[in-house]
Amino acid sequence: MLVKAQTFHYPWEIKLQSGATLGPVDIAYETYGELNAERSNAMLICHAWSGDAHVAGKYSLTDKKEGWWDDAVGPGKAFDTDKYFVVCSNVLGGCSGSTGPASINPKTGKPYALDFPMLTIADMVEGQRLLMEHLGIPQWLVVTGGSMGGMQALQWTVSYPALVKNAIVLASTARLSPQTIALNEVPRQAIYADPNWSNGNYYDKTPPNAGLAVARMIGHITFLSDESMREKFGRRLQRGDTNYGYTFDTEFEVESYLRYRGESFTKRFDANSFLYLSKAMDYFDLSHGLPTLARAFREVSAKFLVVSYTSDWLYPSWQSKELVRALLANGIDATYVDIDSNYGHDAFLLEVDRLKELTRDFLKRV
Amino acid sequence: MLVKAQTFHYPWEIKLQSGATLGPVDIAYETYGELNAERSNAMLICHAWSGDAHVAGKYSLTDKKEGWWDDAVGPGKAFDTDKYFVVCSNVLGGCSGSTGPASINPKTGKPYALDFPMLTIADMVEGQRLLMEHLGIPQWLVVTGGSMGGMQALQWTVSYPALVKNAIVLASTARLSPQTIALNEVPRQAIYADPNWSNGNYYDKTPPNAGLAVARMIGHITFLSDESMREKFGRRLQRGDTNYGYTFDTEFEVESYLRYRGESFTKRFDANSFLYLSKAMDYFDLSHGLPTLARAFREVSAKFLVVSYTSDWLYPSWQSKELVRALLANGIDATYVDIDSNYGHDAFLLEVDRLKELTRDFLKRV
Repeated sequence: MLVKAQTFHYPWEIKLQSGATLGPVDIAYETYGELNAERSNAMLICHAWSGDAHVAGKYSLTDKKEGWWDDAVGPGKAFDTDKYFVVCSNVLGGCSGSTGPASINPKTGKPYALDFPMLTIADMVEGQRLLMEHLGIPQWLVVTGGSMGGMQALQWTVSYPALVKNAIVLASTARLSPQTIALNEVPRQAIYADPNWSNGNYYDKTPPNAGLAVARMIGHITFLSDESMREKFGRRLQRGDTNYGYTFDTEFEVESYLRYRGESFTKRFDANSFLYLSKAMDYFDLSHGLPTLARAFREVSAKFLVVSYTSDWLYPSWQSKELVRALLANGIDATYVDIDSNYGHDAFLLEVDRLKELTRDFLKRV
Repeated sequence: MLVKAQTFHYPWEIKLQSGATLGPVDIAYETYGELNAERSNAMLICHAWSGDAHVAGKYSLTDKKEGWWDDAVGPGKAFDTDKYFVVCSNVLGGCSGSTGPASINPKTGKPYALDFPMLTIADMVEGQRLLMEHLGIPQWLVVTGGSMGGMQALQWTVSYPALVKNAIVLASTARLSPQTIALNEVPRQAIYADPNWSNGNYYDKTPPNAGLAVARMIGHITFLSDESMREKFGRRLQRGDTNYGYTFDTEFEVESYLRYRGESFTKRFDANSFLYLSKAMDYFDLSHGLPTLARAFREVSAKFLVVSYTSDWLYPSWQSKELVRALLANGIDATYVDIDSNYGHDAFLLEVDRLKELTRDFLKRV
C-alpha cells in the first residue's frame, strides 16, 4: 500500500487549554482508503508517545519499512482500508511534521524550544478537529488509538460528543496514575541532566542524545512485561557463551537491546517533543475538577470498545475497568475485553489478530 | 540502643569469583546484643543495594536517626537483640566503610575507581566469612536479608552449608530476571551519561550527581507499587491547589518525592559503588552453569523462611516460589509466606509486625 505524506496548514491561532495560544500550525497527516459518498466511513487513528502520522503503507516501492501499525491498518486488516477512510495525523507538539517545539516560532524566527506552550491531550484533539474540517469529514465513524492514542480517542468523545460515533480505546486510561507520572518524570530528569539539553536550546548544537537515550530505555522497560522479557531475553549473554565477562560492557542480551533502542530513538525523535508529550499525558485526567470520573462522560454519545492487556503494567487493566465503570454509569454502550497477553504494553501493537476479531465484531454490531 | 561503628581490617588478598584479587580490605560492621557462651546465637543481617552496616540504634544520644532497619532490630523486636548477637557489615564494593571503588588502591595511592575489580554476591559473602572468623563465630544461627541482602543469605547457604543453620530470605530471588537486569542497566546508563562521571575518575572533581540522582529515582519507582503510589501521592499537586501550572517545574507530589529522593541519595552514596553493586546483582544466578536451580541447593543444610510480598514487582512472588520449589526438591525444610501487602518492594522494610510474628514462629520451630 503506497501512501503520501501530507501537511495541513492552519494559518490562524489555536487557543490552548492552558490559556496560551499557538499558531499558525502545521499538521502532518496521511490518509488510507476512500471517503465514501455519504462521508460516513472516516476513521481517525491517534498515535502514541513516539508515533507519527505514518501509520501504515510505504511512501515508495523501495521503502524499507512500513508505517508503525501496518499489521493492523490496510486492506482486509483490523482497520480495513477497503471499507474505511483512515486518517492519521502527527500530534501537535510532535516532531514528525506537525508544529512542535522544534518548529520555527514565527515571532522570533528561531525554533520555539521551551517557548513552545504546554499542550494537553485536548489540544491535540483540537488540532485533529481542524484537520477533520479541512478534510470535509462531518463525523468520525471511529476514533481509535492505544496508550496516548487512547487518551486522544477518549478526549474526542468528551470534547466533541456529536463528532464521534464510536471509540476504540486500547491499553489506555482516563487519567494518568502517579506511577505513570513517575515513569514520565524520571525520563524527563534524564534529559534535563544532559548538559547538551541546555534548557531546551540545542537546535543549533549537539542535541541531548545521551539523556534522550536513557529516557527511552526507561520507556522500553515499561513497554514489555516481566514475562515477555524472560521469553525474549532470559539471562542470555550478549557474546553467546555462558561465561561472565565481569565488565561494564554489554553483558546480557537485554542490555544490548536497551542500548540499541535508546540510541536509535535519538536519531528520529526530538528531546523537547518528548518532554512536551510526556507532560500532556501527565495532565490527562478526564475527572479533573469533577466529583467523579463518571461525570466526565455525561454528554458522551459514542459507543465504546475498551481493550486492556493482562500483562500491561504501564496502563494496567484496572484503569480500563475504572473507565468502563464510568462509561456504564452513564448508560453508555461499552464493550470491554481484557486480552490475555504476555506482551505487556506493546500488546496493543502486537495482538493484531485478536484486535481484528474484536473490531470486526464491534463495528458489525454498532 | 547505642551502637559503635567498627572496622575489621584484613591485611591479605581475597581471591574473587572473577579470578581477580582484592586486598587488603576493610569491612565496616556493627554488632548488637551479646554472643552467648556457646557462641550459638549469632545472626547476620545482610543489607540491600543502598544499605550499610548501621542496621539499628544510634551512635550517640544526640543522633537524629536510627539505623535503616531499627523497626526490626532491637530488644523485643523481630530480630531480638536480647536473644541474638546481631552482626551487620557493609558489603565489599560498598561506600560506607568497607573497601569499595572509592577506597585507596594501595598499588597507586589513588582511589580505585574502575580499577576496582568486579565483585559478585559470593565475594560479598567471602568478606563476611572473614569477619565471622575474626569475631570467633563458629556458625550463624541465622543469616537474613531482603532484596540484595536476601541474595547474600542464599549465597551463604550455598557457599558455606556448614556455617548457616537457618536462612530468612525476604523479597529476593535466586537469580536476577531480565527485567531486573534492565532496571539495573538503565540507572547505570544514567550515570555513564553524566559527563561528570568521567569514566569513574571523579574523586577529586565534581561527582556525577545528576546521573546518580536519575539512577536512584528509577529505583524509587521500583521500591513502591502502583497501589502504594496511589495511596501515597494520588494525583495531588505539589502546590496544594487543583490548578495545573502548565510548566516543567514540579507539578505533582510524586515528582517532588522523586526529585527529593534522587538528590538526597547523592549526598550519601558513591556512584561507582552503585554501579559495582548493581553488576553484582546482575551476575547473581545460583543456577549459573547448572542444569536446574534445584541443583544449586544439593549440599545445603540450612532451614529456610522465604517471604515475598504480593505487590513487590521488583522481586515478584513468582521468584520466591521458584526458589522454594528448588529448595523443596532437595527435601530442605522451607517455610514460604507470600505476605499480602500494598507497599511493593519496600514491604520487606515496612511490614515489621508480620515479620516479627513469622521470625518468632520460625525460630521457635527450628
